[in-house]
Parts: sequence; C-alpha cells; structure tokens
Amino acid sequence: MSTERIYLDWNATAKLLPEARATLLEGLDLAGNPSSVHREGRAARAAIEKARRQVAELVGADAAHVVFTSGATEAANSVLTPDFRMGRSPVRLGGLYVSAIEHPAVHEGGRFPADMRTEIPVSADGVVRLDALEDLLRKHDADAGLPMVAIMLANSETGILQPVADAAKIVHAHGGLLVVDAVQAVGRIPVSLEALEADFLIISAHKIGGPKGAGALVSRGETLMPAPLIRGGGHEKGHRSGTENIPGIAGFGAAARFAANGLSERNARIAALRDRLEAGMRAAAPDVIIHGESGDRVPNTTAFTLPGLKAETGQIAFDLEGIALSAGSACSSGKVGESHVLKAMGRDPRLGALRISLGWDTSDDDIDRAIAAFAKIAGRRKQTGAAA
Amino acid sequence: MSTERIYLDWNATAKLLPEARATLLEGLDLAGNPSSVHREGRAARAAIEKARRQVAELVGADAAHVVFTSGATEAANSVLTPDFRMGRSPVRLGGLYVSAIEHPAVHEGGRFPADMRTEIPVSADGVVRLDALEDLLRKHDADAGLPMVAIMLANSETGILQPVADAAKIVHAHGGLLVVDAVQAVGRIPVSLEALEADFLIISAHKIGGPKGAGALVSRGETLMPAPLIRGGGHEKGHRSGTENIPGIAGFGAAARFAANGLSERNARIAALRDRLEAGMRAAAPDVIIHGESGDRVPNTTAFTLPGLKAETGQIAFDLEGIALSAGSACSSGKVGESHVLKAMGRDPRLGALRISLGWDTSDDDIDRAIAAFAKIAGRRKQTGAAA
Repeated sequence: MSTERIYLDWNATAKLLPEARATLLEGLDLAGNPSSVHREGRAARAAIEKARRQVAELVGADAAHVVFTSGATEAANSVLTPDFRMGRSPVRLGGLYVSAIEHPAVHEGGRFPADMRTEIPVSADGVVRLDALEDLLRKHDADAGLPMVAIMLANSETGILQPVADAAKIVHAHGGLLVVDAVQAVGRIPVSLEALEADFLIISAHKIGGPKGAGALVSRGETLMPAPLIRGGGHEKGHRSGTENIPGIAGFGAAARFAANGLSERNARIAALRDRLEAGMRAAAPDVIIHGESGDRVPNTTAFTLPGLKAETGQIAFDLEGIALSAGSACSSGKVGESHVLKAMGRDPRLGALRISLGWDTSDDDIDRAIAAFAKIAGRRKQTGAAA
Repeated sequence: MSTERIYLDWNATAKLLPEARATLLEGLDLAGNPSSVHREGRAARAAIEKARRQVAELVGADAAHVVFTSGATEAANSVLTPDFRMGRSPVRLGGLYVSAIEHPAVHEGGRFPADMRTEIPVSADGVVRLDALEDLLRKHDADAGLPMVAIMLANSETGILQPVADAAKIVHAHGGLLVVDAVQAVGRIPVSLEALEADFLIISAHKIGGPKGAGALVSRGETLMPAPLIRGGGHEKGHRSGTENIPGIAGFGAAARFAANGLSERNARIAALRDRLEAGMRAAAPDVIIHGESGDRVPNTTAFTLPGLKAETGQIAFDLEGIALSAGSACSSGKVGESHVLKAMGRDPRLGALRISLGWDTSDDDIDRAIAAFAKIAGRRKQTGAAA
C-alpha cells in the first residue's frame, strides 16, 4: 500500500486548482494598486473585474452585484446586520432567524445582538423545518423592522441540501430578506441566485479550489444593502473598503470558471466514488450510521458515526493511516467538540461524526484506501469492544 | 531612453519581494485548513505561526499579540470601536480622537458613531498638534469611558513622521488608548511597539513587499481587546474569525523578515535617491513645492506641487512618460479628489499634490528618468503658462 497521503477533507478546504494557481500567479505579477489610475493600477483593476464576472456567472448573478470580501465569514458578518441602507437612507431590520445547523460564521449572527436572533429548528433528517419558519415569521413583529432569514444551501458537516427556494417564498411573503450561505453548495451542485430567489448569497474561494483569503457577498439587487462592515477608502462601491486581494480574487475567478463548467460530469464521477465508499463502509461495518443517507445531499460528502468510536479518536486513527478527514466542521478553529448540527438533528452530539469529503482529484485508489482504512479502524473497534 | 515602465508608487502598493513570493508559493502548496487537526492542517497552522513570529519581530511585539487580518483597513475597523472587552467583561470607550491627516481607513472612525469622533488638528508642517491633543483629552468626559486616540506614524501622502511616542505619554496620562497606523512606517523606519508605547499598531503586508490581502492588528497586551469585528469559528483566539489566508500570511511573514533586516543600508540608498530626485526637481523647476521638505519624513516619499499643474493632469502626463506615480493617496478607490492631508495643513487642497514613492528595486536610472520626465512636464507647463 502506498504511503502517500490521501486528502479527503475538501469541505474544510479544497486543493488549489491548477487553473486558479496559474491565474493567482498572474495576479501576483500585477504591481499596481487597483485604485491607482496609472497603467499598473488599471491592469490590476481589470483583473478584479474579470474575476467579478466569473464569480457572477457561477451563481447566475449580475457582476455589478458581487462584493469581494476576504472570505465567507467576512461576507456573513457584512450582511448579517440590522443596519441596512436604501440608497443613503438607513433601514433597520427587525430580527434574524437563523437555522440551527448554520456554520458558526452565520450561526453567531454577525452584527445582530443576541436578543434579535432566533433559531429555526431542523427535522431529524437534518432539514430546516419550513413549518417552523412560517410560524416564526407569522409571529414576527413587523413594526420592529423587516425580518432577515439565514438558511444554508448545503450543510458543511452532512452535505444535506436545504429547501432554500421554498424558504424564499415564505420569507418574501412576509416581506423579509433571505441570506443563503452557499459555501458548500457552489461547485458541488448548480446554484442560481435567481432560481433560488435568494436576496444574498455567501460564497468562498477556497471551498471550490480557489485560494484562501477571498470570498464574496452576492446580492440580487443593490437597492437594499447592508451598512458596510469595513469602512475606509470606499472600495467595492463603498460596500467594502481596503485594497483588494488581487491574486486571491483573480484565483477565485478562475476557480469559479472551473466550477461553472463541466459540473455534471465531475459530479457524476464524484457521486459514484462516494456511493462506492459508503457501500464499502457499510460492508465493513453494517452498524455504521450515515447521516442524511436517505435525503438529498451534495455528491461529495459522507458524514458517519461508528458506534463505539469517538470522532476525535477516529480522526487521529485515520490520520495515522495517511488519510485526512474531519471530525465535524474544521471551521471552528481546531475545536473538536460536540457537533451542533447533530444536536439540532436530535442525535447525541457527544458521539460525534466523521466527515469524508471528496474533490476534483479524488481517485478510485483513494477510495479503495479509505475503505481499507475504515475497515481496519472499524475492526479494531470491534476487537476492543469500545473506543479504538 | 528606455521605454520600460518605471514604478514610483510604492506607497500605494509595493512590488512583491522575491522572498515573499517564494514563501507565498510554499503556502499555496499547503492543502490543509489550519483549523484541521490532521497532518495537512498542522502544516498550514505552522506556516501561520511562523509568520506571526516574523511579523511580531518586525515591530518589537510578542507573537501572541499579533492578530492577522485581511489588511490594514480591516485591522483599523477592528480596533476603532467603542466596544472593548477586558476578558469577558464589556468595557465601553468614551470617544475617538483622530488626527486630521489619517488614512481614510482610520479617519472614518471604524465602528465609532460620528458623534463620538473628534479631529486632532495638524500644524502647517503637517505634524499632529500635541497641544491640541492635550487640550482635547483634558476636556474629555471620563465618565463616558476611556478616550481612544489614533495617530499615524508616517503620513501616506507626504511621508511626514508624527510624534507618536510623545503622544503616547499624553494619551496614557489621561488613561486613554493609543492606536498607531504604522502602515507607511514599517519597512521605511525602525518601528518598535514598546519604544512608541502604542497600545495598538496597524500594519499591512502589501506596503512592505508582501502580498495584498494580509495585514495585522498588533497589541501591547491582550487584557483589553476590541470586540471582534468578524465573528464565527473563533479563529485568532476569538479576535478574528474566518479561515486564514495562508499564502498571504506566509508571504507577509517573509516580507516582515526582509523589512526587519538591513533596513538602515537600504534606507541610506533610498534616501540618497530621493534627495537626488528632489534636487533634480528643484533644478528643473525652482518653484516646485515639496511638502514636508524641512521636517522629518520617511526616506522614500516625495510629495510635491507644481504651481500651474493640476495633480490629475500631472499624473496622466507622468503615466504617458512611462512613470507610475500618484496624485494623493491611491487608497480612496480611484477617487482623485481634494487631498484632506493638504487641507489639514492649511494648503489649498484644490491644487493637489503628486507623490513619488520609492522602493527596494528603485534604481539610479529610474531616478534619472523621473527627473527628465519631471523637467519635460514642468517645462511644458511653463510654455503654456497653465496646466500642461
């Protein structure tokens, strides 16, 4: 067996695409500040605007409605605020309704104070309960301001898809704004801002094979926009100040172009690998619990619990076998704690779950080795009768 | 005469150092998310912590007190807030006193509402008036909370150095906090957080030859820290959430190491080039006004006004001669408007100023060509008697 490392943690961060790397390198060679009017500045500006069109195209948006940020967390903090503006007039929102399974960047509520945040529960299948959303919005005090609702498109830990388009109809019927964290969905399923009828989309470069350090807040219009989180020189039409991360944004654009093209072929291959992986896991350990198995998921993600194996222990065991995977979300800064996603689904969060996530260079051989490692670790667990 | 472009706009953004580029490329090859506990994650984490030590060393700080951000503008918005925390207890500051010549990222006041911001005037020499600061702080209502003062170390448009260490004594005598924008000072003069007695320093990677997209907020301690601007997964010890820009941060570290070593030799060379440039300009157009000529400046910056030549016109004329320079600050997102810095110095801001700023690869030949272009443009001005 090869001792080469196998990277199966693409939902934590994807490997950098060769296309994104090449475009990032071109961006590094642009000496100018994109705000400068000289030739060097204009070349840097052109690179940003090209990337803006590419990112817009990935999510079916207007390039004029893409605001580049340093990542999805910044984008979430930008849009999750009670302080909006219609042109120059301030508009105050009345509260934030956030699904119980959001990523911490959204779940924390950004600039909404804690007493303005309400959680939307999810079903045991890990799907946001639209009946509960409807109920919450019916009780919302419209005099306090419009409600904002945040629901992710695909859950980062389980890959389970959320009924965002249906939620949009409910939110809009109540005059609210819908923010969709599409970070784990773009590049894995087709995403269209228009089709979803979302008001805002949050996306990240490094989850789709672009560089770390770039993301975007994409809006359906620009009439009603959040008060800027980062103020200063007035970049990004005043929505986000600070010299733009040219190489990062350029690489983001290239990754977006890759993600937008040939998606169905890539995903058919990845879905087949994932299905084979899950079948192999099931054969090796019939008691394995695969979260969201029966529902709609992005094709690259498998979240599972092996009874008797703690997630932390399992993650280390796989790491020693040469396989990088995740215990829950990697986004919580090294914390390997209880999963708020499993908890929201009514599972015992102390059990934890391991997550295998696939990407563009995942091979048949990687899956063979992952299954073999799984069988070994699951078998050891059986021998000791408890945590391996 | 060579037709190669000459880049003399290093204060807008410096060219990427070969060292920073090489380290950035190593960062690109790190597949892991630094929050992941597997081997790939740990390697990414190690790259960040190495950069943190390098950045700390550049400004004489403790590595534990460096919070990486997406740039200086974000760092400014992070620290400029009335909402601080001592441990978990909220502490409310009572007001922001900001010098009239700050960069827009600081001048806008971050999260301070407009009615909590007061401007500190500057002298006709472009230096912050400490007597005025003293006066303002004497009148500060301590019951409203501690005062925060923001004074830059070197002005971006003129290069004029500010009396930050003296200001610190005044600020601390009044129980306040001093925030120092050191963006244009690091890499140009020695900077020590301890020697300055600043409470917070703001620095940017791309001004010292690192990549765009990385910066830092450096603090003297960590007892009293601003409420985080960007919340989520709790990265950077809870001070700044979001997956770290590994390649950008790694490149920042390498640039910081470069900036910390051999500074005096580099600067002696650059100061000599700048002095020769100014002598050549003076010889070609004795009526040129060099802003801050008689005071202390960083060695790489020349801000000048040519009577009868509008800054915008001048910038285009130099661009056509193959020379990239700036009309005021490039940081205001393409706006070539009146200079708030000149205005604060009591000059007619409509005149505007051009800025030539030098860097590590500026050559003797570059200066020769800049002087020749200056003479040509200044001469044309004389012939037409007005704007060239």
